[in-house]
Amino acid sequence: MDISAGLPAVYAAAEALKNWGRWGADDQIGTLNHITDADVVAAAQLVKRGKIFAMGIPLNNQGPQSGLFGGRWNPIHTMLATGTDAVAGRFDDAGGQTLRYADDALNMPVQAATHWDSLGHIFLDDKMYNGHDARRVDAGGVHVLGIEHAKAKMVGRGVLLDVPRHKGLPWLPDGYGISNAELDEVAAAQGVEIRRADFVIVRTGQMERCRAEGAWGGYAGGDAPGVRFENCYWCQEKQIAAICSDTWGVEVRPNETAEAKQPWHWVVIPAIGLTMGEMFDVSELAADCAADKVYEFMFSGPPLNLTGGTGSPINPLAIK
Amino acid sequence: MDISAGLPAVYAAAEALKNWGRWGADDQIGTLNHITDADVVAAAQLVKRGKIFAMGIPLNNQGPQSGLFGGRWNPIHTMLATGTDAVAGRFDDAGGQTLRYADDALNMPVQAATHWDSLGHIFLDDKMYNGHDARRVDAGGVHVLGIEHAKAKMVGRGVLLDVPRHKGLPWLPDGYGISNAELDEVAAAQGVEIRRADFVIVRTGQMERCRAEGAWGGYAGGDAPGVRFENCYWCQEKQIAAICSDTWGVEVRPNETAEAKQPWHWVVIPAIGLTMGEMFDVSELAADCAADKVYEFMFSGPPLNLTGGTGSPINPLAIK
Amino acid sequence: MDISAGLPAVYAAAEALKNWGRWGADDQIGTLNHITDADVVAAAQLVKRGKIFAMGIPLNNQGPQSGLFGGRWNPIHTMLATGTDAVAGRFDDAGGQTLRYADDALNMPVQAATHWDSLGHIFLDDKMYNGHDARRVDAGGVHVLGIEHAKAKMVGRGVLLDVPRHKGLPWLPDGYGISNAELDEVAAAQGVEIRRADFVIVRTGQMERCRAEGAWGGYAGGDAPGVRFENCYWCQEKQIAAICSDTWGVEVRPNETAEAKQPWHWVVIPAIGLTMGEMFDVSELAADCAADKVYEFMFSGPPLNLTGGTGSPINPLAIK
Amino acid sequence: MDISAGLPAVYAAAEALKNWGRWGADDQIGTLNHITDADVVAAAQLVKRGKIFAMGIPLNNQGPQSGLFGGRWNPIHTMLATGTDAVAGRFDDAGGQTLRYADDALNMPVQAATHWDSLGHIFLDDKMYNGHDARRVDAGGVHVLGIEHAKAKMVGRGVLLDVPRHKGLPWLPDGYGISNAELDEVAAAQGVEIRRADFVIVRTGQMERCRAEGAWGGYAGGDAPGVRFENCYWCQEKQIAAICSDTWGVEVRPNETAEAKQPWHWVVIPAIGLTMGEMFDVSELAADCAADKVYEFMFSGPPLNLTGGTGSPINPLAIK
Repeated sequence: MDISAGLPAVYAAAEALKNWGRWGADDQIGTLNHITDADVVAAAQLVKRGKIFAMGIPLNNQGPQSGLFGGRWNPIHTMLATGTDAVAGRFDDAGGQTLRYADDALNMPVQAATHWDSLGHIFLDDKMYNGHDARRVDAGGVHVLGIEHAKAKMVGRGVLLDVPRHKGLPWLPDGYGISNAELDEVAAAQGVEIRRADFVIVRTGQMERCRAEGAWGGYAGGDAPGVRFENCYWCQEKQIAAICSDTWGVEVRPNETAEAKQPWHWVVIPAIGLTMGEMFDVSELAADCAADKVYEFMFSGPPLNLTGGTGSPINPLAIK
Repeated sequence: MDISAGLPAVYAAAEALKNWGRWGADDQIGTLNHITDADVVAAAQLVKRGKIFAMGIPLNNQGPQSGLFGGRWNPIHTMLATGTDAVAGRFDDAGGQTLRYADDALNMPVQAATHWDSLGHIFLDDKMYNGHDARRVDAGGVHVLGIEHAKAKMVGRGVLLDVPRHKGLPWLPDGYGISNAELDEVAAAQGVEIRRADFVIVRTGQMERCRAEGAWGGYAGGDAPGVRFENCYWCQEKQIAAICSDTWGVEVRPNETAEAKQPWHWVVIPAIGLTMGEMFDVSELAADCAADKVYEFMFSGPPLNLTGGTGSPINPLAIK
Repeated sequence: MDISAGLPAVYAAAEALKNWGRWGADDQIGTLNHITDADVVAAAQLVKRGKIFAMGIPLNNQGPQSGLFGGRWNPIHTMLATGTDAVAGRFDDAGGQTLRYADDALNMPVQAATHWDSLGHIFLDDKMYNGHDARRVDAGGVHVLGIEHAKAKMVGRGVLLDVPRHKGLPWLPDGYGISNAELDEVAAAQGVEIRRADFVIVRTGQMERCRAEGAWGGYAGGDAPGVRFENCYWCQEKQIAAICSDTWGVEVRPNETAEAKQPWHWVVIPAIGLTMGEMFDVSELAADCAADKVYEFMFSGPPLNLTGGTGSPINPLAIK
Repeated sequence: MDISAGLPAVYAAAEALKNWGRWGADDQIGTLNHITDADVVAAAQLVKRGKIFAMGIPLNNQGPQSGLFGGRWNPIHTMLATGTDAVAGRFDDAGGQTLRYADDALNMPVQAATHWDSLGHIFLDDKMYNGHDARRVDAGGVHVLGIEHAKAKMVGRGVLLDVPRHKGLPWLPDGYGISNAELDEVAAAQGVEIRRADFVIVRTGQMERCRAEGAWGGYAGGDAPGVRFENCYWCQEKQIAAICSDTWGVEVRPNETAEAKQPWHWVVIPAIGLTMGEMFDVSELAADCAADKVYEFMFSGPPLNLTGGTGSPINPLAIK
């Protein structure tokens, strides 16, 4: 059923793609289960040149948050001890010889910058992935499906699908919906195959456009290029471990239906149990892949071990 | 000069080991420069079984901080949107069909749990690594030598040195100073060699003792087992990339001299430019190494891309 | 019905004392409605000597919070700009003449120190004061009955009831339950009458005991002296505006019944709509009252205008 | 010397008006010393009608902060426990009878909304009020002249000077500098006298203009109407306790000289020791004063007892 059918299409996809129970009633990590030990070994073999690409955007008060989406704020970084203090003698005892140091703190919504979503982030009606009651996420935290369960799972084969470069564009325009056929076409043109357990990173170029324009604009919660709703079927069929993008929410905005806000999210997280990475800075990686024509790499993006997190800020690495 | 000589020994070591200018006046990463691309490639070859060990301790309000060391607090995790809200209809528009989600925020000193120290964390008198003026760290942040410079550098060969297991102990007692000779002895007994560019992880067992006792006690800032002051010479000679431990501060406490608080820190960070990882949970990794007798592995521990951070909370991985 | 009857006694009191609708369906302030303009004028007339007593405890990281009650933390005060920065030249432009300043931030649970509870703080089953649905308090805030509605109401006649001094004790022991008869007896002995619209402040001395002992111990959430459950009837009968105390929760702990935690709270906030002030430092005020035998005064304790707060940190004043 | 002379005029004013030592070497409160007990008694006599005007702006994420002035953020209010949680059963034990409550936290720069500046907020070169070394304000807090010293001092006679109403304007335009002569003229026209120990509140109407326009615009740190530099002489001569305004920084912006940013601040805080209140919402008070022609009132604006604060968020009251 096409998303133009609205909510029935969303529910039909959720029903068709539901992985509840597939990895046991106690499962907390969904599609990360696709990754086998052998996949990790094979991923490491992709490291040929020793080049590391860090994909985390800077954490500071110049980030993309603008108050959309319920008041997320940009990272607040405050100093608890400074070098100016040290030089002024703050840490010196009578002999002048105690430790001179700087210290600081970070305060941010876990999804304010480059991050993983945990499976506890999105609900389908009153349910979470694996059939858990949504009310197990309360103001005390995410009591099931928190990001801590993925702490040792975010390593495997990564593949970049560079859609705008394939089309000869610097970036895709807002509202551009990437079809499944186009993802396959890009992969084929790049000479790379999408396999079970992959960390698939879709480049739209939106982040680079914001940088070129010198303003985040509607990046955090507004219109964006991204995958179409049908992508949920593609992810399930390919049995990928995770899907990531350089946008705020992976899927195309405006939404393809007026009946559900971010309809792809309704399916991929609670029904499929798919891990999702957002706001990845892929500019350097993409340039390198275009240069050496190698679009696969070892991916290593450990989340913080945040108890009961709906996600985690990260600085994921592509290693070629 | 022995540390029993007090401050003169500290300054002598700093002078003898100073890497200022070694990697250029603009260098921001110190000993991480030891890592070559070939080292990264070789490190990946150490992935044989596809086993991943996550070394980040849980980020929650049960962490080790107790108010010592200037008031660091345990991670504060607050929810911005919940499943209980979702079920109560908070996100539903007239049609009942908007996105149902959970969201949250994290507030913590960057060094409150498992973390990297950046080179901007410690000063030697009025100077930082590479001769920078300490006053370039002010309440606006760490304007040189912040952790962001290491965002794509924390990958390489890791080696675990399990001191208590070598001695047949579950953990080393507080105040136990590990000598250079003992580190070499442990390495030899484990059949592993320390090489240029290694991420060396020293296990003391202190964290496991706290867990066994059900209380952190003086873990954060009190007495601890750890390397002796002389270890600064060992690190420089071995040309390691980084040194990490399962303790709050790597070096033995109480300090070996009354004339300087944490004297090893005075030398390794500002003089040598050595990166340091603290509060690594190595219990699972150590058990695995003891079982398969393989003490080397691929190490991947990317910091958050925190602009001007004195460090970063991390969840570093050992991959075997 | 006596509280020894357990829950039925709680529900009976709630039913008997319920002020729902008394001040209109739209009322947001409950018993603060007792205060008339004339009461404010009369209260000002109580200022005879021009002495001001500030009752807010210090906001810093040495406060009473110990992790009880869901993880409230002590106030975190961080500097955003400092004098050490200023002297180091951080704010100086080329001419050296920009503004030299210090700046800072405060992060605290609103009820972590001296504070008001708003009427949105406590629920009776699924309801709030005036019959509002408890679900109108979600992770987005307190959408009815927030503390902002009381922003211009916290002025009136204050009366101190100094129970331990009346009994010749420095403080009441933990677990001591103050009866209604005893409150009346103290008032009579002090020569003061409790009237409609009063801000009644009950001294137990617990805070002073903690100070004398140099440790907060179980102050925040543990055992305490305080009013008995029957006090809910007293407050309603006297038609007081608010009740305040020098303890964490006004009512005696351990609770008088095992069937409800803090049973007095169940009644006074959601049923009566009584405003409550906690952790008031009354030591100086009490000493002054004992000296001049005047136990009434002008009370001024404005809450912060915090939108949707369950309460507000305050520094309330008694002016004699 | 006129401010058109630039820095020399600033230093000349500072020298001429310096109150250092006037109230003793240990003094922490400057011009608040002007207030006598008798002044407090007299102020209370101004309460004739029992009308209370709360002047604190709402604390929420819609406040005026826009990232100007070093990254101050709007108040962040997060919930720790909610009614949706309560209804979902989060707090119920086996018997279903534990306390059902909501709880929350507030995180904000102390000067992000309506607030007092403490005397530790501004430096004159390397000095603070009373000659203290600016370096006594470090990342650990304001070690002298913090706002806690004023915790029992912010009560007295308040006077509103409504400049735009006097001129028949809804508000003064940005950049309008209010002269001393004009303040005197307004007072005379209003039939009110400025006396020693007054809390003087100057209305410019800027906040109301922002509200009328539906946007804060440059309110926080941009251009504004306000008092001219010469006002520092007026404040000292009148011996007022404090000066407050409905703007971000009391003084006119753009500054009257290019040689000093906020030159009036340089003098009033560190030289005079004058307490200053900013972002007061005076709209209701001003309308009332215009109606009853009474421009004097009892003022009560206690700061939070924040240890080492550069100021405090407040909700100050005018009581008529």
